[in-house]
Amino acid sequence: MIQSRVHVSDLREHVGRTVTVFGWVNTLRLQSKMQFVVVRDGTGMVQVTHKRDNGPLEARLQALTPESAFKITGRVTDAAQVKLGGLEIVPETVEVPNPVATPLPIDEQTGIEHRLDWRFLDVRRRPAAQLMFAVQTTLEQGLREYAYAQGATEMHTPKLMGTASESGAEVFELGYFGRSAYLAQSPQFYKQMAISAGIEKVFEIGPVFRAEPSFTSRHATEFTGVDVELAWIDGIDDVMAFEERMLTPAIAKVADTHGEAVRERFCVEITVPTTPFPRITMAEAHEILRKGGWTPEGIKEDLGPEGERRISAHIQQATGHEFVFITHYPVSSRPFYHMRPADDPSVTLSFDLLWKGLEITTGAQREHRYDVLLKQAAEKGMSPEPMQDYLNAFRYGCPPHGGLGMGLGRVLMVMLGLESIREATFLFRGPNRLTP
Amino acid sequence: MIQSRVHVSDLREHVGRTVTVFGWVNTLRLQSKMQFVVVRDGTGMVQVTHKRDNGPLEARLQALTPESAFKITGRVTDAAQVKLGGLEIVPETVEVPNPVATPLPIDEQTGIEHRLDWRFLDVRRRPAAQLMFAVQTTLEQGLREYAYAQGATEMHTPKLMGTASESGAEVFELGYFGRSAYLAQSPQFYKQMAISAGIEKVFEIGPVFRAEPSFTSRHATEFTGVDVELAWIDGIDDVMAFEERMLTPAIAKVADTHGEAVRERFCVEITVPTTPFPRITMAEAHEILRKGGWTPEGIKEDLGPEGERRISAHIQQATGHEFVFITHYPVSSRPFYHMRPADDPSVTLSFDLLWKGLEITTGAQREHRYDVLLKQAAEKGMSPEPMQDYLNAFRYGCPPHGGLGMGLGRVLMVMLGLESIREATFLFRGPNRLTP
Repeated sequence: MIQSRVHVSDLREHVGRTVTVFGWVNTLRLQSKMQFVVVRDGTGMVQVTHKRDNGPLEARLQALTPESAFKITGRVTDAAQVKLGGLEIVPETVEVPNPVATPLPIDEQTGIEHRLDWRFLDVRRRPAAQLMFAVQTTLEQGLREYAYAQGATEMHTPKLMGTASESGAEVFELGYFGRSAYLAQSPQFYKQMAISAGIEKVFEIGPVFRAEPSFTSRHATEFTGVDVELAWIDGIDDVMAFEERMLTPAIAKVADTHGEAVRERFCVEITVPTTPFPRITMAEAHEILRKGGWTPEGIKEDLGPEGERRISAHIQQATGHEFVFITHYPVSSRPFYHMRPADDPSVTLSFDLLWKGLEITTGAQREHRYDVLLKQAAEKGMSPEPMQDYLNAFRYGCPPHGGLGMGLGRVLMVMLGLESIREATFLFRGPNRLTP
Repeated sequence: MIQSRVHVSDLREHVGRTVTVFGWVNTLRLQSKMQFVVVRDGTGMVQVTHKRDNGPLEARLQALTPESAFKITGRVTDAAQVKLGGLEIVPETVEVPNPVATPLPIDEQTGIEHRLDWRFLDVRRRPAAQLMFAVQTTLEQGLREYAYAQGATEMHTPKLMGTASESGAEVFELGYFGRSAYLAQSPQFYKQMAISAGIEKVFEIGPVFRAEPSFTSRHATEFTGVDVELAWIDGIDDVMAFEERMLTPAIAKVADTHGEAVRERFCVEITVPTTPFPRITMAEAHEILRKGGWTPEGIKEDLGPEGERRISAHIQQATGHEFVFITHYPVSSRPFYHMRPADDPSVTLSFDLLWKGLEITTGAQREHRYDVLLKQAAEKGMSPEPMQDYLNAFRYGCPPHGGLGMGLGRVLMVMLGLESIREATFLFRGPNRLTP
């Protein structure tokens, strides 16, 4: 019965009692006189110790193989000599719901690609991977709590689009009842429609799809986007303020709930940032890079990964802050719908947020004036016809607005010091990976 | 400045003061001596009253058109004769961020399909539609609060799959770097992998895709699924108990927060259900239908929409309860991975949840034994090769588990008495609709 189930982390409170533990066989040591089984559940590990007696229980324990899921009922006993919590379970019954193939396809030495092939075993066997998903859950809970408290409306915008909007490149195309549909690269157009629908604060956490042949540690063809769009803003400062006020308590919630476990499993200290985060313009960022003696080709438009790392390092040294907003990206590196300031049409009212050198967010004020939007689209060589539904949202009244898109996996990657976004995703999708 | 902004619903507290309201022009009455503008924001409507004076303000108000987004600053004044809250605003300045095309493409008489073409205007202009999304947000918040409190882990499983799993039919296919990928019809296989990965309670709210050419009021090609999967269950009762305990406080939260507004806008009373919900087997359901004098052809396998309505009506009359779980669907109408009871291999350990006659959830205990799963797949004529990644999750230990998939739009549809799932979705997707 589920009622009598005790998690491994709570066993200390049950010394002297008979309990049932549900878990997996972590390791087996089947000796001539004794049988030792280390059981692992989501909360820890405990040793089961059985003295051979030629009985049915001995036979059942002997038949166990690593990674069997099983229920074991037995008495919790103080055992100072046992490393795992100074406890052991003296078993009475064992129940194995299904047989387990051997040998296991992965072990501690397996590299990441093969681990991803057997991701369920990889996650099951590594407490750090289990912790990653607990952290993700808490982080999202924190982000949502802020959004809810601000009166944001949680929307579910379509992932199926009738036209390849935004750019046309890097979009997946699918067959749709005799014609083509496209997967949304972001909820961008739809969350703006929600603004025009009178929903003043829009919030969505959902999948976004990028048909990019990128093989870096920080790109995926499908990932979870955290999107926000806000009406009636005075400028991008309102959007950046929303983001830093959303992120900070969410990070604090993770630190409170999992800080100690993260320190132990990932050797990382989660620092709760102070607000406001530092803000510098792209022009200032270039000035910093130049002064730092770094002026490679082609970084006028954007910073690139190396420039981002250098800027973050500089800001952290100068201010102690792990985050920095870079604002006012040049028109050439931003989409047509980013608003441009009246006094400098060469830049956009946009920002990226960097955390420890990695871009985790792109945001902007959007152009809400139909005629200006048409002009900016034409300048980028885009035809208005395929995106007429989007453009229509600005023809019948639309307030000034702006928003942001944050990559959930990137936030987790930086927070936990993971080497790749593959580790921050349950089942990673990349150009070469569609399985499992 | 955003600081001085007051929502319409709060104006009563600001009588005698000068405030700014952000909203849309709902209606205009431009008379010879007076100008009246009714402003609408997300919280209500208020009248702006201006006596013509040949000044610049008169000209600005005269230039307004319906559905302009605008900021209006003025003094809040008691005006008992005004129907809208006995208040009016005497304007001082008006700011219109962008011009508005006329005439509007929809009005009060517009039918649903044309309304959907202009969904942003449709939602903006109808307070009931605005309320729908507020209810959705509160409902999801309530569902998540229960899941979080139960220690469930929020997962984001891939929507891109390497093979057309589950059935092969009704799956969208897309080009993926020179090969094919498929859109997930549900997180089913992946949430089971999460169970095998040692995550004991899995929770996901996200899009699911069905390439079904269905044109009913309750089908969509893309909708939001609420998915749960639970490890170490003793049977489907554990899954049904989770669902009723998740739904009940979420419905109570909606009733608390929006009950009065829902009554006013939708003429519907939200009844918070009692737990446990009634449970009957499929065999009992057929007995009830037979006794009620209804035995159409072909309902042996399933109930069909009419049978579901009749069963719900019967249960509501007999017990007063709006919900009913129907359990033990026949093998023929359920997928291969549903577990079958040892004593009756003709049925499955499965259930549907009906609310006021509409199926809102399908759930089951899953078969976790690799050999039995293979056998059941073969019986359904399915080849194991394309789903080997899924099947592998049961080869290396997997606890008994079960779960459910709930359609968020259907829950909203029943809760608010909506005629179609189109009204419970921001941007509906069906075989004939991929826009806007």
